[in-house]
Amino acid sequence: MTKVRVAGAGMTEFGSLPERTSRDLFAEAGRAAVEDAGVAREDVEGVYYGNFMGELSEHQGHQGPLAAEALGVQAPATRYESACASSGVALRQAVRDVRNGEADVLVAGGTERMTNLSTAESTEALAIAADELYEVRAGVTFPGAYAMMATAYFEQFGGTREDLAHVAVKNHANAVGNDRAQYQREITVAEALDSPAVADPLHLYDACPVTDGASAVVLVSEDYAETNDLDAGVAITGTGQGGDRMALQDRENVATSPAATEAAEEAYADAGVTPDDVDVAEVHDCFTIAEVLALESLGFFEQGEGVTAARDGKTTRDGDLPVNLSGGLKAKGHPVGATGTSQVAELTKLLRGDHVNSEHVPDARVGVAHNAGGTVASAVVHVLEVAE
Amino acid sequence: MTKVRVAGAGMTEFGSLPERTSRDLFAEAGRAAVEDAGVAREDVEGVYYGNFMGELSEHQGHQGPLAAEALGVQAPATRYESACASSGVALRQAVRDVRNGEADVLVAGGTERMTNLSTAESTEALAIAADELYEVRAGVTFPGAYAMMATAYFEQFGGTREDLAHVAVKNHANAVGNDRAQYQREITVAEALDSPAVADPLHLYDACPVTDGASAVVLVSEDYAETNDLDAGVAITGTGQGGDRMALQDRENVATSPAATEAAEEAYADAGVTPDDVDVAEVHDCFTIAEVLALESLGFFEQGEGVTAARDGKTTRDGDLPVNLSGGLKAKGHPVGATGTSQVAELTKLLRGDHVNSEHVPDARVGVAHNAGGTVASAVVHVLEVAE
Repeated sequence: MTKVRVAGAGMTEFGSLPERTSRDLFAEAGRAAVEDAGVAREDVEGVYYGNFMGELSEHQGHQGPLAAEALGVQAPATRYESACASSGVALRQAVRDVRNGEADVLVAGGTERMTNLSTAESTEALAIAADELYEVRAGVTFPGAYAMMATAYFEQFGGTREDLAHVAVKNHANAVGNDRAQYQREITVAEALDSPAVADPLHLYDACPVTDGASAVVLVSEDYAETNDLDAGVAITGTGQGGDRMALQDRENVATSPAATEAAEEAYADAGVTPDDVDVAEVHDCFTIAEVLALESLGFFEQGEGVTAARDGKTTRDGDLPVNLSGGLKAKGHPVGATGTSQVAELTKLLRGDHVNSEHVPDARVGVAHNAGGTVASAVVHVLEVAE
Repeated sequence: MTKVRVAGAGMTEFGSLPERTSRDLFAEAGRAAVEDAGVAREDVEGVYYGNFMGELSEHQGHQGPLAAEALGVQAPATRYESACASSGVALRQAVRDVRNGEADVLVAGGTERMTNLSTAESTEALAIAADELYEVRAGVTFPGAYAMMATAYFEQFGGTREDLAHVAVKNHANAVGNDRAQYQREITVAEALDSPAVADPLHLYDACPVTDGASAVVLVSEDYAETNDLDAGVAITGTGQGGDRMALQDRENVATSPAATEAAEEAYADAGVTPDDVDVAEVHDCFTIAEVLALESLGFFEQGEGVTAARDGKTTRDGDLPVNLSGGLKAKGHPVGATGTSQVAELTKLLRGDHVNSEHVPDARVGVAHNAGGTVASAVVHVLEVAE
């Protein structure tokens, strides 16, 4: 079993780019990753591509071959779809295949084009990540689903809207210097609290935006990195995936995310690390409450303690465990199929020291990426480590 | 590297089942496969699930968790989409993961629900497997695309509509006894020739039908099969995947399928077999011309010779190499996301001797499954062998 290095990372800007097609976005991100890696395009042996709603936003399925074309490579390419965890599951499979010697050079990435749809259309399109028969037809949308999760959390463990507002404030602050981020501006707790209600207790500033964008990473075997003298100092040492029932009604407790816990435990065991070893994390904060659930699922905080982590400064960039230094889904943006690999792209840069926010984690050696699908019916966790 | 056995296979009937949901269909096929395998459901470590157009036919994405639920297992589940090769690529990844020791028991399968759409809707939905920008907007549908491929083939290599009609006649004859098949009836060459034109030179009987259905196979490691004393006498010994440009206009020669050739060469090398070793094959005959291209891509016939193979009796059930003994996509039906694993399910039964058509291949030891996406912009080939 060989080890897996991240040789390169690339992202488009995240934002409202309604006139750019998915292929155009992925061409930019994928080629940036390959250039960053310094690998020859003809060495790429496969493309593992995440996309969520191309059928609805671009009337386009079968996007694997288009992704390879956009990248300019002639290699087998497969599209993975696991709602908001689409590129996370694609990445996981690429990690396994490099590790197991199936390939030396793979590109994992993803794209989403969303803002060409109206708000009503994109809300309806996003709803396909929930259970059509038992949730969507009953009126559930994602803000509504996460609002139910927040309500359940508050009831069981306490917490307030103000606690959640601090998550949004933190992530906006982190995004200020990130030129890939959709919202490069700070917000205040008062602004978050005063923003319009979306689904009680969640308000506008508790929610991530609708975003277009693409991301990609180049994975190589350690042997390939050495033979080709690549600058690939970050390794992916752990991967884990978990699953849960699709509909909230079928879960034992919607104030927890057991699929993410399962994924995290597998990834930590795989890497041989514990939550205490983690220096920096990118977690799936599609809503502020989602970051809270992630912090607890990942073992960083006990149940009921994640909700005050941002407010208490534990997860801010000056805290013990900076979370979402990229700005997170909240401020960096959430082009659904691109999010999983963008987290790993951000962590790679943070760990190798060339991220705008690397100065806040100068000694970081271990990073964790947490990517969730739907209301965490699927979850993928990866552990990254400085390798040299 | 452990070896991979097919421990069980299951399929729903294929046909017009518009009132059955995808989850209902997959519950039947998946549970049949698990029961056939004789494995405990709690031993299933993952579900690799193919689906093509659920977003359009059921307003449902994120189908991995739903597939696991339908199966009654609590395990990570991922949806793969590669147009008509969706469950083929899912299977390939499951084969790799069992082989590489990532899991001992995996379910690979797929589903498509199509007949709840009108013919116009399903034709438009199927078109998302082609290039939206450069083909679909110019009016290309799949019958039209394959008609262009047939025309190019006829021009370069010869062949007639009557040659193609023999492919349809053969596959219908094979389906007669297959209780899973959509059309369990024979047709004549005259009927095929006289059927309405769809896209010249292809007529109605050159095309597979629109179909609902599901299929699944249970893959286990050789160690697991032995430890648990399973009756799993068929092994998957080779897997290959190829890719090509998406749009026909970007191909060098649309009378060939290089992606399938690439997949076949990889699968044969993987298994250590040659085309001459193959005793029986299930190939992707979405149109009669597609079977011809497949026979040549797989190395069974030289270029230009595949078109008369059925007519000359070489690929009929009495021929040297029976092809599509199940009835193929043409007569068994083509529930898109279910097709790839249904081919492997049929081959498993053919090789172990409990298929209705096993009597025609009593000494068969090597089978090949060929699953293609779109106009073969993606292709997956698997080699199955009798293992004991």
